[in-house]
Amino acid sequence: MTGTVYLVGAGPGAPDLLTLRAARLLAQADIVFYDALVHPDTVALAGYAEKIAVGKRCGKHSTVQQFINKRLVDAARKHAVIVRLKGGDPLLFGRAQEEIAALEAAGIRCEVVPGITAAFAAAAEIKTSLTQRGVARSVTFATPRVGAQEQPSDWANSLAATDAGAIYMGVGEASHIAATLLAAGKPSTLPVAIVENASLPNMRIHYMTLRELPQLADAQITGPALILLGPQFTAREGVAAFAEAERCRFPLRKAAG
Amino acid sequence: MTGTVYLVGAGPGAPDLLTLRAARLLAQADIVFYDALVHPDTVALAGYAEKIAVGKRCGKHSTVQQFINKRLVDAARKHAVIVRLKGGDPLLFGRAQEEIAALEAAGIRCEVVPGITAAFAAAAEIKTSLTQRGVARSVTFATPRVGAQEQPSDWANSLAATDAGAIYMGVGEASHIAATLLAAGKPSTLPVAIVENASLPNMRIHYMTLRELPQLADAQITGPALILLGPQFTAREGVAAFAEAERCRFPLRKAAG
Repeated sequence: MTGTVYLVGAGPGAPDLLTLRAARLLAQADIVFYDALVHPDTVALAGYAEKIAVGKRCGKHSTVQQFINKRLVDAARKHAVIVRLKGGDPLLFGRAQEEIAALEAAGIRCEVVPGITAAFAAAAEIKTSLTQRGVARSVTFATPRVGAQEQPSDWANSLAATDAGAIYMGVGEASHIAATLLAAGKPSTLPVAIVENASLPNMRIHYMTLRELPQLADAQITGPALILLGPQFTAREGVAAFAEAERCRFPLRKAAG
Repeated sequence: MTGTVYLVGAGPGAPDLLTLRAARLLAQADIVFYDALVHPDTVALAGYAEKIAVGKRCGKHSTVQQFINKRLVDAARKHAVIVRLKGGDPLLFGRAQEEIAALEAAGIRCEVVPGITAAFAAAAEIKTSLTQRGVARSVTFATPRVGAQEQPSDWANSLAATDAGAIYMGVGEASHIAATLLAAGKPSTLPVAIVENASLPNMRIHYMTLRELPQLADAQITGPALILLGPQFTAREGVAAFAEAERCRFPLRKAAG
């Protein structure tokens, strides 16, 4: 008899943005493997479980991934309810497919429990819809990061052709992103909103334009941050008032409104 | 004194894919305005609230939207906790911006609580990641639907330039989508997975290729369905076994594996 491995999305950061299903599975779990970015209060919901930090952030070495795959398979041969807790949603920039493939190859049942990914938490913070009638009818989630074995992908072409974009893991490459998207034909005045630590108390918002995006390097961003690009991502009065109040502490924060 | 309006994502359908925060707000709500697609068990979490169905599905007339806006403003002048419960996530294809704008114009505080949108529930059903290293580094959420006052948008160009796509509200336009994407250069063999009623007991999966997408008209899809396109959306053994078992009941369901 083998157990079931649940790949569970922990959501964007705030513990109460977890789903009810995820909370129930954590309470039932025998063992939990969790990523570095998952909130400690979320992990703590697994009251009875052995809790194992696998310490993975995006971009880590594939041998680390192979080790996680093996531990999941081993755990399923000893336990009934195994939770693999991943930041955001498991099926967006999460390398879940490698874990699913390893489990399927070993004949182990797995289920995926979706979670709130950062783009939706970021949009909620700035109260700005990712799509809007007459403004943006498509939104593309992309990352400029590629693995060691990969060719540079067409992320810039994808973003150039879409109305709105959400860029994951892009803060360290702000200059590269700006240059690439400008070369792909995006206007220099395209509004950009960067939301750092979306859903957490230390959340920060930065408003700027695509031309100004390279300044992001000066913003001392240390937490996970999402870059939103599109005509709708200008500061509005309600959000701008908040941004204005914070401007002294965070000089880069620009309220266009 | 006016209340606060919470625009809350109800998630993809299954009541336990609601967030903990949404469940708490529903329990505290004085009044709840909910969309047609929200599960009755989710609405029932608002134990003390007056519950008002606003019956909106996507694509309805803007006067309906204006009426909802007005009711939210009126409710905020009488109650403390007002929940506007929307299917999926409020900020993707949800017309939330019109409600936010109306509330901001009336000086009423509003907050957005993100929810799981259908694309993530659909991907979880087929256990296939929306992005995958070396396969798909970007995913575009789009819809072929445009409002009465809108020009046809560039949804097809967005999808043609991206690695993977999730099409909302596209089932009724399957032939149009296939023709448009083929003309935009997508290969006829591009894998397509359609997930109907994702996360609900009456969930169905249809695997096909872009060339076969027009056959979807024969599938008698009645519930909300999401069209996923990309190289990774082929049937795999685990998912295919399930699909095979269901094939007799749903002749269109094609397991490629």
